[in-house]
Amino acid sequence: MKTFKISEKIYKYRFGAPRPTEIIADIGEETTKAEIDYFHIAAGEKLKLTFKMEPEDMIWGLGENQRGMNKRGGLYISYCSDDPNHTPDKKSLYGAHNFMIIDGEVKFGVFIDYPGQVVFDIGNDHKDIIEIIIDTLDADVYMIQGDQPREIVHEFLKLIGDGYAPPKWAFGYQQSRWSYPDQKAIDEVADAFIQHDIPCDAIYLDIDYMEDFKDFTISKERFPNFKDYVSTMKEKGLRLVPIIDAGVKIENGYRIYEEGVEKGYFCLDEDGKPFVAAVWPGKVHFPDFFNPEARRWFGLKYKDMIECGIEGFWNDMNEPAIFYSNRGLEKAIEKAKTSENENLDIYTFFDLKDVFEHMSNAVEDYQSFYHNINGKLVNHNMVHNLYGCNMTRAAAEGFREIHPNKRFLLFSRASSIGMHRYGGIWTGDNHSWWEHLLLNLKMMPSLNMCGFLYAGADTGGFSGDCNAQLMIRWLQMSLFTPLLRNHSAMGTRRQEPYAYDQESMGIMREMIRLRYALVPYLYSEYMKALMAKDIFFAPLAFAYQDRMSKRVEDQLLVGESLMIAPIYQENAVGRYVWLPEDMVLWRVDCYQQREFKVMRMGHHYMDVPLNQVPIFIRKNRLLVLGNHGPNIDRLDPSEVFVIGFVEDQTSYVYYDDDGETYGYREGMYSKIFMDIHRKNGNLDIQIRVIGRPATKKIHFDIVDMQGNVTQRTMVLESSK
Amino acid sequence: MKTFKISEKIYKYRFGAPRPTEIIADIGEETTKAEIDYFHIAAGEKLKLTFKMEPEDMIWGLGENQRGMNKRGGLYISYCSDDPNHTPDKKSLYGAHNFMIIDGEVKFGVFIDYPGQVVFDIGNDHKDIIEIIIDTLDADVYMIQGDQPREIVHEFLKLIGDGYAPPKWAFGYQQSRWSYPDQKAIDEVADAFIQHDIPCDAIYLDIDYMEDFKDFTISKERFPNFKDYVSTMKEKGLRLVPIIDAGVKIENGYRIYEEGVEKGYFCLDEDGKPFVAAVWPGKVHFPDFFNPEARRWFGLKYKDMIECGIEGFWNDMNEPAIFYSNRGLEKAIEKAKTSENENLDIYTFFDLKDVFEHMSNAVEDYQSFYHNINGKLVNHNMVHNLYGCNMTRAAAEGFREIHPNKRFLLFSRASSIGMHRYGGIWTGDNHSWWEHLLLNLKMMPSLNMCGFLYAGADTGGFSGDCNAQLMIRWLQMSLFTPLLRNHSAMGTRRQEPYAYDQESMGIMREMIRLRYALVPYLYSEYMKALMAKDIFFAPLAFAYQDRMSKRVEDQLLVGESLMIAPIYQENAVGRYVWLPEDMVLWRVDCYQQREFKVMRMGHHYMDVPLNQVPIFIRKNRLLVLGNHGPNIDRLDPSEVFVIGFVEDQTSYVYYDDDGETYGYREGMYSKIFMDIHRKNGNLDIQIRVIGRPATKKIHFDIVDMQGNVTQRTMVLESSK
Repeated sequence: MKTFKISEKIYKYRFGAPRPTEIIADIGEETTKAEIDYFHIAAGEKLKLTFKMEPEDMIWGLGENQRGMNKRGGLYISYCSDDPNHTPDKKSLYGAHNFMIIDGEVKFGVFIDYPGQVVFDIGNDHKDIIEIIIDTLDADVYMIQGDQPREIVHEFLKLIGDGYAPPKWAFGYQQSRWSYPDQKAIDEVADAFIQHDIPCDAIYLDIDYMEDFKDFTISKERFPNFKDYVSTMKEKGLRLVPIIDAGVKIENGYRIYEEGVEKGYFCLDEDGKPFVAAVWPGKVHFPDFFNPEARRWFGLKYKDMIECGIEGFWNDMNEPAIFYSNRGLEKAIEKAKTSENENLDIYTFFDLKDVFEHMSNAVEDYQSFYHNINGKLVNHNMVHNLYGCNMTRAAAEGFREIHPNKRFLLFSRASSIGMHRYGGIWTGDNHSWWEHLLLNLKMMPSLNMCGFLYAGADTGGFSGDCNAQLMIRWLQMSLFTPLLRNHSAMGTRRQEPYAYDQESMGIMREMIRLRYALVPYLYSEYMKALMAKDIFFAPLAFAYQDRMSKRVEDQLLVGESLMIAPIYQENAVGRYVWLPEDMVLWRVDCYQQREFKVMRMGHHYMDVPLNQVPIFIRKNRLLVLGNHGPNIDRLDPSEVFVIGFVEDQTSYVYYDDDGETYGYREGMYSKIFMDIHRKNGNLDIQIRVIGRPATKKIHFDIVDMQGNVTQRTMVLESSK
Repeated sequence: MKTFKISEKIYKYRFGAPRPTEIIADIGEETTKAEIDYFHIAAGEKLKLTFKMEPEDMIWGLGENQRGMNKRGGLYISYCSDDPNHTPDKKSLYGAHNFMIIDGEVKFGVFIDYPGQVVFDIGNDHKDIIEIIIDTLDADVYMIQGDQPREIVHEFLKLIGDGYAPPKWAFGYQQSRWSYPDQKAIDEVADAFIQHDIPCDAIYLDIDYMEDFKDFTISKERFPNFKDYVSTMKEKGLRLVPIIDAGVKIENGYRIYEEGVEKGYFCLDEDGKPFVAAVWPGKVHFPDFFNPEARRWFGLKYKDMIECGIEGFWNDMNEPAIFYSNRGLEKAIEKAKTSENENLDIYTFFDLKDVFEHMSNAVEDYQSFYHNINGKLVNHNMVHNLYGCNMTRAAAEGFREIHPNKRFLLFSRASSIGMHRYGGIWTGDNHSWWEHLLLNLKMMPSLNMCGFLYAGADTGGFSGDCNAQLMIRWLQMSLFTPLLRNHSAMGTRRQEPYAYDQESMGIMREMIRLRYALVPYLYSEYMKALMAKDIFFAPLAFAYQDRMSKRVEDQLLVGESLMIAPIYQENAVGRYVWLPEDMVLWRVDCYQQREFKVMRMGHHYMDVPLNQVPIFIRKNRLLVLGNHGPNIDRLDPSEVFVIGFVEDQTSYVYYDDDGETYGYREGMYSKIFMDIHRKNGNLDIQIRVIGRPATKKIHFDIVDMQGNVTQRTMVLESSK
């Protein structure tokens, strides 16, 4: 083991000779520190780190995973998996997020920088033992110190580098389905949103927009003139967001395929030929995203669509998902043939059934192809978790080359830590289950801790049928996630807002309008968190030290001012909520109405009818709202509304920028500093401005501890 | 439609010419009432009943199903299904329980007496519409009136007849696993319970005790002398409970198979030959349990094991489960063969995968065999939901013939309403998921409403690995279910109490001892509910009329005196609880300790450390406890302990009987009437006795409204 000091707070422990993952740039300085703190290390065939937890220790992090925000009790396996059935026992989802925090008497963070499989047993086998098992003996382990979990996260986010900034329109409501296959289907969706006056920013193109599922093709039949169509839609205020899959269809005459073969950009099988797997297009090759040349080649392929006016993409199937390989299919068919006319005993029968059932995403397949990494062939399985990350890196690097100063919407299904620099994630193929609404809530802060600020789940659930009530309740939760996308699978009930009864649609419309009214705050908080290396969603325990706040698993802090407590149970029209301090409750059924109730620190049961979403404003904090509009571009930024709950004093920095470029990195943004003091019953509001904010007028509703509201309007002086 | 009056409260509406199901004996008296109340009827290809719900209407019942106690929002399909993956979207589990209650401004019960598929859309497609779709046009629909849901249930339970009384030992802790395959494995379990001083009453024999999964055989290799072994175990205080499957292995020389063929007792295929399906034994025939002769024949087959000393059985695989049929397997293999060397497009590939995946329990298979019902061949699919019920009826009728006055333990996986007369149910192959602990809680009162008082779930979960914390929390819930069985699947983590760390085992031991201490109360309440045609578990809304009690989905009333509020979330060490009136909280980590806290009506957050189970005693109610013992037979009945919460006055009837025979039906039981009055600060306790109770001494701990405890000991006069 070698030890490297990265900073006062971070040490890296190098075991064996790890393969570079390019996740962390800072190589640090070698030191003589001989022992790793806290963990007991055992190195047999695999590297094993163990830690004895105290009964009260809580474990945060691990990103996209099952169970609670407190990960204690679970077994998690970092191995990016295309498993569409997220039952509570599943140990691997699409992401591999090897960062966690131990929070007890002892507090520290640990990041396992390893591109293959890592097992995290967090008190599952034995209730008090953490066991981390790394698949080989070569890995970098980073240990991160900090006084509090939030500080540890901050140090970790500094370590892994600047995160992804989406364009501002990506904070709008986005409508998706597998699939709106053609212009007619998309027109129907667009027209319905317009007709029903429901704000919307984007409509998604799932796999059926392509010609035979070929990447970077567009069906001529279904989209006779794609560029014109993109413009037409943009005139309606709607952006189209196409999907790109990892696998490239094997087809003579298909340019991407032919170029990839010619240039040697595909992953290779044991015989040195391009590896063949079957996914949506049938047989495909996988681009070798570990090869920088291949990455650049693939990244620039997005250009044609960008030139058609496309400004956002989602990268899918990049674990990579494998429906079957030739090996797997042949094995299964052989098994079936030898079963013919046999009086199968039950074990033989289940063997036969299993071979078909387990044909997809088989580890044997992942072990049977290779990447060209710095001229050496490396078995895919050894670096499996970086494949999706590198695909999204390819896209992001391509965008940067095509339009250096333009922010694109980009998010991915497979991911690993480090991918946050290139794009966001959605949490994959969830179900229309109430349990997945709750999972969505619990997962958000964990994802944030691993760098993924731009994230969200398929609102309403991807698989299965979503009834009106679940759709409404899920929407009420997703209102607060940076990525707000309603997405559903082929064959399931339609779940666009207008697909339900009138009353339900009316509720959804108000909720979506509320989302747009919240955008000034959400965007301000998102960008500030991004720049400050902080998180957007936090567990209560990250801000409050009381005993209850450590226990709450169904409330979240959103930015610095808000707490949410969504309804996630069928037929519930109320719920319990813990207030770690006095807060203002704003029950919103229509965001233009501003009725506030001061609620005291403590436990409360609150009514939450189906048409209401409760928003809590923390003490001495401010919420900045706008008015809704048909989409983000058409929001009126000149007038904002501030709801504040002020006991004595507070300040808020309202951030804004062009929402389109990377200018913010060079200081091209505006900040409105609001300082409010309450003295002798008088409210003093001071406004100070940096940059050239579009905001000209601010209306204040400031609530005091007794619930009295003081209203003020401030006109901003012309910018300096 | 014809209308029959069954009683003042119950009308039967006969549509078409329904096949007799033998569920309800009372044929009623034909009346001229022309219209069914509440429902709109439409008769196309199927019979459809629709009802418009008011926003506040709640829907109770539907027995073994997903979702809440309030079934609103769901789509449920009554079609007994062997589906081991109870995800929230599943519409059919193992039972078909067609009784529900509409509880709003209008209150009524409806029972669909129909043996085939029935769909219940309870506000799923449209949030306010109930739609009941009966598969054909022939059905009896019973409408049940009552002022309150509990009264409607009572009328319904009277209608469907006397329920099942298990022997008292069936209220002990029962240890199961698939499988303890041989004497050695069972000895290890038995010795571990004895060594660790953990009470236990039964060890289960899952399918591996048989010779090649042949019903009513016992492996000579694994059980060289079964009868002796049963005695040896009984001397250790443990009963063995073997499984019996529905399918009879096709094997020359196997007596049951040969007799069944010879006598024509098996279901027939389209060609009039015994129908062949494959289940655990490989190819089997299904006994035709609709044929009374076949039923008697099968029922008497239990006799050999009963003569070995067996006193309990569980009937499994009786939906009937079909792993595959010849038809299904041939179709799949043919599909595989034609796929060979084809460059499968993705649709063809999924067709191939699906044909293997959907081979089990295919409706085509259920449609391809026949029963002999009163000399007529009836397609199985038309009467599918009664098959499991009739298997268990066969067993119960057999027991009655073999030992007319002996109560046997008997429960079944598949069931329909009416089967409650013959045995209990367990809720099938659940998972070691926290979600299924909560589902267990919610399902219990619904099962009770449909007649199934003797019921429970696989504690700890059948599939998947159960960690220590989940095992403890689940046990704390199952303490209160009449059937308390820890059961798990092959290949999963061992989940006997001693399979965990010492601390966890210690907690489980205390919990199991508490269960035994609770048996006097549980048995008394069970038997009284059984005789009074009442339920054992009730939602709060069945006893309290306040707004909150209607909403609570995670607390239960257990018998007349207790309320429970289990922990069902990982890492939770506390929870919210609604008290509809003042109650006494008894936090139990060791049942010998009696510390009580009076809690006021209202919302509370209470701490519940892992080693504690909170028990609430309702106001003016009494709880009767005993001491624990190694098993039910060795409990000491002479001394009981009463914990009471008495404001002014209360009475309790403590029921007991021999726990073995049907003597209770002839009045062979004891009742101790306890009457307590509190006057001017003095407590007056009166005891009156019917029968010859074993109880000789009663210790009272009576808590007053201020939490003061008055202790008394009463010695019962020698019985009259």
